[in-house]
Amino acid sequence: MRPHELGLVEAAEAIAARRLSSVELVTDCLAVVAAREPQVGAWVHIDPDQVLREARRLDSEPASGPLHGVPVAIKDIIDTCGMPTCSGSSIYAGRRPGMDAACVALLKRAGALMMGKTVTTEFAYFKAGKTRNPHNLDHTPGGSSSGSAAAVASLMVPAALGSQTAGSLIRPASYCGVVGYKPTYGDFPVAGVKGLSHSLDTLGVLTRSVDDARLLRSVLTADTVFPFSSSERWIPSIGLCRTPDWLQASPETRHGLEQLLLSLGACGARVGDAQLPSSFAMFADLQRKVMAYETARSLAPEYDGYREQLSEPLLALIEYGQGLSTEEYSEARSSAEQGMVAISPIFDEWDVLLAPSAPGTAPLASDGTGDPLFSRMWMLLGVPTISLPALDGQNGLPVGIQLVGSRFGDDRLLRAAQWVEKVLSDRPRFSLL
Amino acid sequence: MRPHELGLVEAAEAIAARRLSSVELVTDCLAVVAAREPQVGAWVHIDPDQVLREARRLDSEPASGPLHGVPVAIKDIIDTCGMPTCSGSSIYAGRRPGMDAACVALLKRAGALMMGKTVTTEFAYFKAGKTRNPHNLDHTPGGSSSGSAAAVASLMVPAALGSQTAGSLIRPASYCGVVGYKPTYGDFPVAGVKGLSHSLDTLGVLTRSVDDARLLRSVLTADTVFPFSSSERWIPSIGLCRTPDWLQASPETRHGLEQLLLSLGACGARVGDAQLPSSFAMFADLQRKVMAYETARSLAPEYDGYREQLSEPLLALIEYGQGLSTEEYSEARSSAEQGMVAISPIFDEWDVLLAPSAPGTAPLASDGTGDPLFSRMWMLLGVPTISLPALDGQNGLPVGIQLVGSRFGDDRLLRAAQWVEKVLSDRPRFSLL
Repeated sequence: MRPHELGLVEAAEAIAARRLSSVELVTDCLAVVAAREPQVGAWVHIDPDQVLREARRLDSEPASGPLHGVPVAIKDIIDTCGMPTCSGSSIYAGRRPGMDAACVALLKRAGALMMGKTVTTEFAYFKAGKTRNPHNLDHTPGGSSSGSAAAVASLMVPAALGSQTAGSLIRPASYCGVVGYKPTYGDFPVAGVKGLSHSLDTLGVLTRSVDDARLLRSVLTADTVFPFSSSERWIPSIGLCRTPDWLQASPETRHGLEQLLLSLGACGARVGDAQLPSSFAMFADLQRKVMAYETARSLAPEYDGYREQLSEPLLALIEYGQGLSTEEYSEARSSAEQGMVAISPIFDEWDVLLAPSAPGTAPLASDGTGDPLFSRMWMLLGVPTISLPALDGQNGLPVGIQLVGSRFGDDRLLRAAQWVEKVLSDRPRFSLL
Repeated sequence: MRPHELGLVEAAEAIAARRLSSVELVTDCLAVVAAREPQVGAWVHIDPDQVLREARRLDSEPASGPLHGVPVAIKDIIDTCGMPTCSGSSIYAGRRPGMDAACVALLKRAGALMMGKTVTTEFAYFKAGKTRNPHNLDHTPGGSSSGSAAAVASLMVPAALGSQTAGSLIRPASYCGVVGYKPTYGDFPVAGVKGLSHSLDTLGVLTRSVDDARLLRSVLTADTVFPFSSSERWIPSIGLCRTPDWLQASPETRHGLEQLLLSLGACGARVGDAQLPSSFAMFADLQRKVMAYETARSLAPEYDGYREQLSEPLLALIEYGQGLSTEEYSEARSSAEQGMVAISPIFDEWDVLLAPSAPGTAPLASDGTGDPLFSRMWMLLGVPTISLPALDGQNGLPVGIQLVGSRFGDDRLLRAAQWVEKVLSDRPRFSLL
């Protein structure tokens, strides 16, 4: 196996055991970047000299943490000292923060090497950057964590930070065939991350395995304990959640999820249908309202001072939000809190829910970055979710599945995801063709 | 009445009616600053030329909003373009943000004039700045919104932005004898505000009347409707909440609140005792845990890169938080969410709760900035609260009372506070002497 093919945990272990140096690892990753970046366009800033200098420094120092010498890519809404941070907007062109974001500091504390900054859509909303889907360059990688998902999928880097307000992490993970993990709202620190909507904005990670996501969770929470062993034998119960928007998923996606549920049942999981209260039908729309209301206020400085530099879709979101009253907003947040209470018993019955990550495969790049619909409700509820690559779709494009856990139930979710990942790896990939 | 004695609403009305110019108003306010600042020490940045230039510009332009030409002071953890923002720490000495915080942009959109930056304790925690209590210079103004409370209390400016994570706004309001209003968690945008603890950090305002706080709420939420008339006849029901920490309040404070409740009853309010579930006794401590856990992660860049520039109390908070596991933190947040549900029926019985703002009068400055204990539980629950000056304590120092509303019940809270404020203004101030 070449170094760039290693996952985060594997690479960290190889470096810790001195079977691999950080310089060897990043040299190999940089070779993949050199080969594929002209087509994929995952990066807004990557400086091979800077990366190699850091790798040499880390190789010369004693191991400082569980990610010593391993490169991680950073979505370009996240402040980084020594690299520009532009949030996908010309308003912030050339901006160089004086301080790292908290999440970057925690990665560095664990010994990680900052590989560079990955393309984000404009302020993590809809206006696409240059990135293309590594599986099919005519298609979008999804957004807004476009570059992070594409860089991990094309083996340029083992892991990347992303973020999600509507569907900015789960959707690109699904489209690019990687693991995307979004924790319980509030679990990863957002200080130094450019925000849109403070009730929803959630930092997350893109990796190629659940184990790698799990390691990043322990680093990004700066946890004092590593919560569970990945070798345990435990089989989760899994409820298929045909969300209120189920019919917006393609017939192939729906069929694939139903077939997958049967397979998981055949492998020993208790499976069945998980019913949501009917009131949940409004939650995707309430997420839109909360997001628009808060974005209109959070981006007031940019709207008032630099309006001509904002895209049409973002202006439309802001102006929709400006028209919402505080009473409508409060009602939406209050309904969300009631939903958090109402969903709780469902996780007494099921360890995790199985749901679509996205309607189907990645659309053509000319049609935008895809629809975050299948993440909106979960964002409003603040529950943790993870997208796993599971199905093969048309045009060489993958389709992910989403597992959803209870609030603060991230450990259970990640354990369940590891079991599902194992089942998926032991059998041929479902084809939706 | 001299211009600097006007409240925010009065000043805005006088300017709108062209009975007063912004230049006249700020000239008078600057005269007060010149006279009192050497003793009070409310400001880290105030530039009379800059203020007068802005006032002339606003006087030359058509009225742009409900605060046209009126000065507002900004706590120095809040980013301001054109003024330094240092968060009370030498780490950020000389820092000049390239963009306003969202709340500053919303004030400017309403026509307000940025008067300057007010002293904050270090990163809004305990290490005091230079500010003294305007009522007695031997005493603390409270923290962390020290300069904001002192500037409003000493008539240097009609209103100021503050923030609260534990008791950083209600406590200085109480100690300085001004109105301090902290909305429902999340109601005012925090983009561009240096944070400690994202689950708790809440922006708020310091004014000299409830009506002024109400106007700032409508500006800082960018609400599409002005929610209620202040002239209505409505009498709230008021439950005295002897919080789990009741005995930590001085006998004078407890006696004062009990006497005040009787007076409010005599003026027509339904009053009585409001009982909290016994589980609430742990909430002040859970607030400490959540704050410490999150601060340890949010300030990771400063801790890792500039540790020698952090104060002992802040290092102690961070290191306590570093030792907390993610499981302990999740349990605390989960308990908080259960508390939010559990407190809800209390607001079916009472419009507002009456509780202490602080244990008593401001301590000596040499003894620190006072104890935020009586705000911790309300912060964990995310409920809106307001402190009103109500009682006279020893050494010429005031004592505030705290009214607490339901989550998203800010309008009802402010209406109730206006009624209580009216009762208080119609009768001689209670003396605790």
